[in-house]
Amino acid sequence: MNETVFLAELPWTEVGARIRAGAPVFLPIGATEQHGHHMAMNVDVVLPTAVAERVAARVGGLVAPTIPYGNRSQPKTGGGRGFPGTLDLAASTLSAVVRDVVLGLFRHGVRRIVVVNGHYENIWPAIEGIELALEAIGPDRTDGLIVLRVDHWDLIEPGTIDRIFPDGYPGIELEHASVIETSMMMALRPELVDLSRAVHDGPAKFVRYERYGVATPEVPASGVLSMTEGSSAEKGHWLIDDVVEGLTAAVVREFALEPRK
Amino acid sequence: MNETVFLAELPWTEVGARIRAGAPVFLPIGATEQHGHHMAMNVDVVLPTAVAERVAARVGGLVAPTIPYGNRSQPKTGGGRGFPGTLDLAASTLSAVVRDVVLGLFRHGVRRIVVVNGHYENIWPAIEGIELALEAIGPDRTDGLIVLRVDHWDLIEPGTIDRIFPDGYPGIELEHASVIETSMMMALRPELVDLSRAVHDGPAKFVRYERYGVATPEVPASGVLSMTEGSSAEKGHWLIDDVVEGLTAAVVREFALEPRK
Amino acid sequence: MNETVFLAELPWTEVGARIRAGAPVFLPIGATEQHGHHMAMNVDVVLPTAVAERVAARVGGLVAPTIPYGNRSQPKTGGGRGFPGTLDLAASTLSAVVRDVVLGLFRHGVRRIVVVNGHYENIWPAIEGIELALEAIGPDRTDGLIVLRVDHWDLIEPGTIDRIFPDGYPGIELEHASVIETSMMMALRPELVDLSRAVHDGPAKFVRYERYGVATPEVPASGVLSMTEGSSAEKGHWLIDDVVEGLTAAVVREFALEPRK
Amino acid sequence: MNETVFLAELPWTEVGARIRAGAPVFLPIGATEQHGHHMAMNVDVVLPTAVAERVAARVGGLVAPTIPYGNRSQPKTGGGRGFPGTLDLAASTLSAVVRDVVLGLFRHGVRRIVVVNGHYENIWPAIEGIELALEAIGPDRTDGLIVLRVDHWDLIEPGTIDRIFPDGYPGIELEHASVIETSMMMALRPELVDLSRAVHDGPAKFVRYERYGVATPEVPASGVLSMTEGSSAEKGHWLIDDVVEGLTAAVVREFALEPRK
Amino acid sequence: MNETVFLAELPWTEVGARIRAGAPVFLPIGATEQHGHHMAMNVDVVLPTAVAERVAARVGGLVAPTIPYGNRSQPKTGGGRGFPGTLDLAASTLSAVVRDVVLGLFRHGVRRIVVVNGHYENIWPAIEGIELALEAIGPDRTDGLIVLRVDHWDLIEPGTIDRIFPDGYPGIELEHASVIETSMMMALRPELVDLSRAVHDGPAKFVRYERYGVATPEVPASGVLSMTEGSSAEKGHWLIDDVVEGLTAAVVREFALEPRK
Amino acid sequence: MNETVFLAELPWTEVGARIRAGAPVFLPIGATEQHGHHMAMNVDVVLPTAVAERVAARVGGLVAPTIPYGNRSQPKTGGGRGFPGTLDLAASTLSAVVRDVVLGLFRHGVRRIVVVNGHYENIWPAIEGIELALEAIGPDRTDGLIVLRVDHWDLIEPGTIDRIFPDGYPGIELEHASVIETSMMMALRPELVDLSRAVHDGPAKFVRYERYGVATPEVPASGVLSMTEGSSAEKGHWLIDDVVEGLTAAVVREFALEPRK
Repeated sequence: MNETVFLAELPWTEVGARIRAGAPVFLPIGATEQHGHHMAMNVDVVLPTAVAERVAARVGGLVAPTIPYGNRSQPKTGGGRGFPGTLDLAASTLSAVVRDVVLGLFRHGVRRIVVVNGHYENIWPAIEGIELALEAIGPDRTDGLIVLRVDHWDLIEPGTIDRIFPDGYPGIELEHASVIETSMMMALRPELVDLSRAVHDGPAKFVRYERYGVATPEVPASGVLSMTEGSSAEKGHWLIDDVVEGLTAAVVREFALEPRK
Repeated sequence: MNETVFLAELPWTEVGARIRAGAPVFLPIGATEQHGHHMAMNVDVVLPTAVAERVAARVGGLVAPTIPYGNRSQPKTGGGRGFPGTLDLAASTLSAVVRDVVLGLFRHGVRRIVVVNGHYENIWPAIEGIELALEAIGPDRTDGLIVLRVDHWDLIEPGTIDRIFPDGYPGIELEHASVIETSMMMALRPELVDLSRAVHDGPAKFVRYERYGVATPEVPASGVLSMTEGSSAEKGHWLIDDVVEGLTAAVVREFALEPRK
Repeated sequence: MNETVFLAELPWTEVGARIRAGAPVFLPIGATEQHGHHMAMNVDVVLPTAVAERVAARVGGLVAPTIPYGNRSQPKTGGGRGFPGTLDLAASTLSAVVRDVVLGLFRHGVRRIVVVNGHYENIWPAIEGIELALEAIGPDRTDGLIVLRVDHWDLIEPGTIDRIFPDGYPGIELEHASVIETSMMMALRPELVDLSRAVHDGPAKFVRYERYGVATPEVPASGVLSMTEGSSAEKGHWLIDDVVEGLTAAVVREFALEPRK
Repeated sequence: MNETVFLAELPWTEVGARIRAGAPVFLPIGATEQHGHHMAMNVDVVLPTAVAERVAARVGGLVAPTIPYGNRSQPKTGGGRGFPGTLDLAASTLSAVVRDVVLGLFRHGVRRIVVVNGHYENIWPAIEGIELALEAIGPDRTDGLIVLRVDHWDLIEPGTIDRIFPDGYPGIELEHASVIETSMMMALRPELVDLSRAVHDGPAKFVRYERYGVATPEVPASGVLSMTEGSSAEKGHWLIDDVVEGLTAAVVREFALEPRK
Repeated sequence: MNETVFLAELPWTEVGARIRAGAPVFLPIGATEQHGHHMAMNVDVVLPTAVAERVAARVGGLVAPTIPYGNRSQPKTGGGRGFPGTLDLAASTLSAVVRDVVLGLFRHGVRRIVVVNGHYENIWPAIEGIELALEAIGPDRTDGLIVLRVDHWDLIEPGTIDRIFPDGYPGIELEHASVIETSMMMALRPELVDLSRAVHDGPAKFVRYERYGVATPEVPASGVLSMTEGSSAEKGHWLIDDVVEGLTAAVVREFALEPRK
Repeated sequence: MNETVFLAELPWTEVGARIRAGAPVFLPIGATEQHGHHMAMNVDVVLPTAVAERVAARVGGLVAPTIPYGNRSQPKTGGGRGFPGTLDLAASTLSAVVRDVVLGLFRHGVRRIVVVNGHYENIWPAIEGIELALEAIGPDRTDGLIVLRVDHWDLIEPGTIDRIFPDGYPGIELEHASVIETSMMMALRPELVDLSRAVHDGPAKFVRYERYGVATPEVPASGVLSMTEGSSAEKGHWLIDDVVEGLTAAVVREFALEPRK
């Protein structure tokens, strides 16, 4: 029972011991959101959890339970709320969850927290939640608390993008349910991907503004914003390796840790 | 990919098809809370999720992602916040999560929702969240929406309790990290239980009021409120069967469904 | 004007003097909720207020004004919102009231507070309100503040239950508007009880889950969840004596007070 | 039990009958606030409750439980939070209570509500609470709901002021714990007034702005903003009569009622 | 670029220098609300901003951006929400804005803040916002922070009122869009006033209570609560001079400043 | 008085007439945030207001008062809260302001709203505010309401970027207080720019994650994230023309308007 990095799979005694030893704690934030005909809806949960797990193993950290619901899905970045099964939270709700978990970790003595985000729309509510926690603690009482926040895709190396998209990168803003996410899922949870079902109706060409109160006609009917062609588990491993390496390096540097090998 | 009942492990197309077919949706609510030296902290996540999964399979339902953080752990029912690793939410936060998920399901056309609770302290915030969702929808627009809410332990049959506790039942109020929860975990996730580590310092004898601002000295140091002796996977199966049977019957009756066999 | 224990019936000078002398302050929390055909709707206000008054008199305490509206009435514990006249608060509202009053007492230097609850549904919002107050004060600034919280019925002695229910106790969960509450009201406010109007349509047999969005058919039409037969003022005094003795002992012990006789 | 106008002193059956008969419901809002050396702190509770009781009796109305805690006491109008025993609510808390009670009355079919205020600082949170309730109901679903809001002192006739202050009126803004409130309390609850203890250190001479973060040195040490000399029960009756007459007339006119004699 | 007192028209370096030199910061709070046929809707923005600008210039202060939306317009003081273009905020929203800006100033080291209000309905939400900021800072951490709050019209001298209204003053409570506001606007922004369009349908004769859920028939159709006859830029200058003198004196006295000439 | 497009500079009668004629209403959202040594702090107010003004003039629209405080300044996009004078709002506060203003416009019959944003950090709270307003209205009562939301910089044409940055574009993410904003300010408010004071310590090289609880060392001391060299009023006009053209086209298309010339 004691080998895992998942906090919730350990007894409290072991969690207490690791916290006392200075373990950084990773908090993955995901979403339950459509990811095309060819993939399960838990992509934004699986990816940051897997990254957190791998980095935690490298730096002696713990992984708190992934928040499985994210901030309101938007048409331009996730297809929006119209797709059946997409379940999301108001921004204030997600911020409150992040705030409460960060405060709980702080109460237990954790001073090194890493919020690992897997859903674009979560960025701002996650920031707000972290800031609300810091305000609740009080600026003169943080006792050295540092919270890092990262969107896993930001740690993909440009060289890897070039290798994956030799004909040019459509851009991260369309990378919803597309090659990057699909490849990473194929590497991590192949049983949740079925490329044979992929529908090719993208890439989306969005106008440069947003509409509320009416549908966004530019969203492809499939929910895939860019394309899935060329996805592979191998590419998924390249991507995951980038993110894990990048986050490990960041955590080691920021928290002055000794990485394990 | 299509056999699972877990909504987040399906593509949106399949979720949409099942919702259109009238699938009830189960929302398990858990906690991340100490459960003694001998068990992982995710007991309140594992149990309602397992129950929901089994009942959903019987009635053609879907299971939404389990909320992994619960309402503030209290000394008399969960040991309280002092145990390392216990991570919880303010009541308003948990209510907001429940409200948002129920509203999301309603938007997608779901009219049969079952909230399956695994953590005592969640009862009232879950009720509040459901009521807030109904108020947000409006009393004249619910379109037949029915939300059931159940605490899984309430569906254990008295005869099973008698079989498990031939010398008398300490009472559900002390059943935190004790025989019932331990047995159910042994049946479901034996790798997360190690009875050899169980510490026997209970049962707790609580005063008949609560204290805030100071510690509750009656909480056993182990976090086990009652006792663990006599726990077994076999008993766990008896308990799970009771709950699954009871909840299946309730869902079939309330939603006028045809159960599968 | 100075003999009363009711804070609001004293001038501020006297309140200040008593606070400086270390008076504990009792905060009763009630409800405005149906209690059958035979009783007024203020039962949950009258009972905790009377208990607080008597205990305060014994320990040199003060009683803050009773919060007259409680948390959402639920069908299984209070009949629910369908009964005319039941007026309740959202959980967040009640928590905010409790938080604000506790913070006000703290600002005035009170360090011994006792929340005396008279309505089942108030339990969790009262806890939340106390916790929110403690968080607002800050963990390192409570200056010794202790808040006790009690549900008055929990201090009834088992022997008294046996005397009142020689044929077996239906259980506290059905004790809404039934023998215990009716007897206590007869002892305290006999003019608000008219047993001749009691309607006998119980006891309720509730299913082991809850429904939202639809009515709860098991709620007796009268609003009496168990029964009223056998209620008497004499029994009411037994019950009140139990609670007053029990709470006095608790307060003396927890606050290291000298009780008055 | 059935003669009272106090909703909470009636059984639900009687409340239901009166609501069906069109009874307007009065909601008094008070405060727990210092009112000088010579008076109890519940002045702002006693006065609007008494007014509501008398008017309700004249128009076949009901009186909901008085909210006993008001909005933050301010130095210029109530002495401020520095006086021991003054217990108040954040504005958002009071607004939420008003909103919830108005919504509860509306759910029960009440379409005529009168909010009777006894504490200056309550004006705006009461307005906000009423508006929040109307917004929650929705502008096209109010079904004829009308909510009146009145500050009882606004119904005092100018002629009465002239009779009471033949040498000139210090102005309502200083009438805290002064002749008007003292006289009304002497008429209603003489046991809560002891003029022999009145301290004469006013009237306050406030600057024409407010300070926060520091004390307001202009607040008289006694808490009496103006003066108490000349207070009498007789004057109190004049004042109460004015307010009761004025409010009865308003309610009859606005709700097209037949007043009782 | 450096002569202005408007914080937002300076680079941060200059703002920092002035804050370090002890500059008090003025925060004007306005409204977007009808002010009759003859005036623009920004009266409540223009007036407190102009006052703040002039006083800041006299005392070496800075003026933060004016909050251009105020608390809910009420029929008796601003005509209410029925007039096209009146745009307002919920009380909690305005309080939150005030709280956040005060907290921001405090973080930058400002310890002398003056909230200058131009809209009657803003009084209580502004107070609440200031109090919420002080609570968030914590009572023992304010580091000498003083916040003054003033309604500009309260600094008009009685002698000036007598000069302007030789036939008697209708009272400040009707001074919405009437002689005082019109004259001040004519002095400050004559291009936003067109007296030839003034409609004379007042003064309003309000009942002594308020109605919600229905219209207030006493509101003059023009939106002018009193009258506009006799307005002039000259009188406007008298009024502005009063307020500027009064506020300068207050700020100098409370903050122990040396006024500039 | 009637030529302006600024709603608050018109009398209500004129606003009402234009709304009845179908005028779209523009709501600019700004910030009060450092923009280097060489520019005033109101850049994010000036730019979207100017854009809104120009587009409104072209399409017969109105411009509501600009919200002058934005969401929390972040180090990577605005330098962060450490720069003196940066004053911002919590996300929930800004969302509430947007919600309230959108709801107010809707109440007045406006069905075409355009939120024009000038501050990167505002994106998500603005979305949330719009969504909260739509939820408050109710999905079946929007009566055709459409809200557009745009970040003005997104309407700059790629060709213009190429003309301005012949040596390569540093990227919009560093365009804080840099050539684009500086040029636009030089075109619009030259008196608020002093290029001679520009400090050249950028461009910032940010790590690919964020830190909270500690400073972000990569933020240039000047607050300019990229560079200011090459800024000019001429380029500013190119940029403004792009945005005005782009937004006019969008508004005309989405609202099926006839543009004026």
